[in-house]
Amino acid sequence: MRHKIAFVVAPALLAAAVLLGTGPSQSDGPQFNAKGELLFPANYREWVFLSSGLGMNYGPLAAKGEETPRFDNVFVTPSAYKSFLETGRWPDKTMLLIEVRSSESKGSINKAGHYQSDLAGIEAEVKDESRFPGKWAFFSFGDGTSPTGKQRPATEACYSCHAEHGAVDNTFVQFYPTLLSVAKAKGTLK
Amino acid sequence: MRHKIAFVVAPALLAAAVLLGTGPSQSDGPQFNAKGELLFPANYREWVFLSSGLGMNYGPLAAKGEETPRFDNVFVTPSAYKSFLETGRWPDKTMLLIEVRSSESKGSINKAGHYQSDLAGIEAEVKDESRFPGKWAFFSFGDGTSPTGKQRPATEACYSCHAEHGAVDNTFVQFYPTLLSVAKAKGTLK
Repeated sequence: MRHKIAFVVAPALLAAAVLLGTGPSQSDGPQFNAKGELLFPANYREWVFLSSGLGMNYGPLAAKGEETPRFDNVFVTPSAYKSFLETGRWPDKTMLLIEVRSSESKGSINKAGHYQSDLAGIEAEVKDESRFPGKWAFFSFGDGTSPTGKQRPATEACYSCHAEHGAVDNTFVQFYPTLLSVAKAKGTLK
Repeated sequence: MRHKIAFVVAPALLAAAVLLGTGPSQSDGPQFNAKGELLFPANYREWVFLSSGLGMNYGPLAAKGEETPRFDNVFVTPSAYKSFLETGRWPDKTMLLIEVRSSESKGSINKAGHYQSDLAGIEAEVKDESRFPGKWAFFSFGDGTSPTGKQRPATEACYSCHAEHGAVDNTFVQFYPTLLSVAKAKGTLK
């Protein structure tokens, strides 16, 4: 009887975990189609927010003029975030997404500063050690409405810039204040 | 035997749900101590990000000078977010949190614009229909290190401003672009 119960309970626990979307840690990892394109993660707004910037001049879609600066919001998959909190490092299958939005200054009660408005574009950075020779790759979802993202050629500047200047393993943790303190504590800052 | 299995499996599923932190939808709702203070939700950075602004002049802790504008990041409890996506309205026990951070312009590869830096303060807005006469109340966690938040007096401007200008039920959905489109589609905009 004891074995029978274990046999029933274990699959039930697994089913519950899968059903509740909290299954194996890689369940929120990148998915690719046969052409090697990255499938758009439709629920990325429910991932963990890392930080945002306004008018930063390194962003892939940053506007040049200061009069119409753009916001960028960075999100990461929940399983990768939890792993980073524990280790200060990014596990395999980490996926970060940068969402670029236009800004507005005057609307409703707001009379100064900037708040976020229309979507301008979405790009992703993916760690997949077996798929990419440099472990990491970048993908563009264009204006954010494309269901699949094309990989950016490895000759593009994003690869060398992230590799050279990313504070932790190809990522700009220096711009993510809550992760920066974790990396300092774990000794994983470059 | 069938009853025995159901008896074993049902508690197992419940235990799994609780263990995995995905239990009843109100499990991420506000918690109060005996003095009516709001307990600090330590995992709020894993809630759903709604939007951020820079130097907005309505924020509770917005700096006056344009030279040192502050970012505000708004988060909401996951269960309330899911409910809003379905209905365009906030359920009872909704909790929103605004995190204010200082900004920096020059650091690492960044030469213009602004990115986020040190924590400056945290405030919360809570909907609890049975606890608050006006259904909603505001709490301050000071500089963000306080384990409990004191309720702001109902005479403070935040109450009347949110009630008068909030686009959906006391909240500034007009500044949260992904929720604004939901509210428009559901017809819940004021």
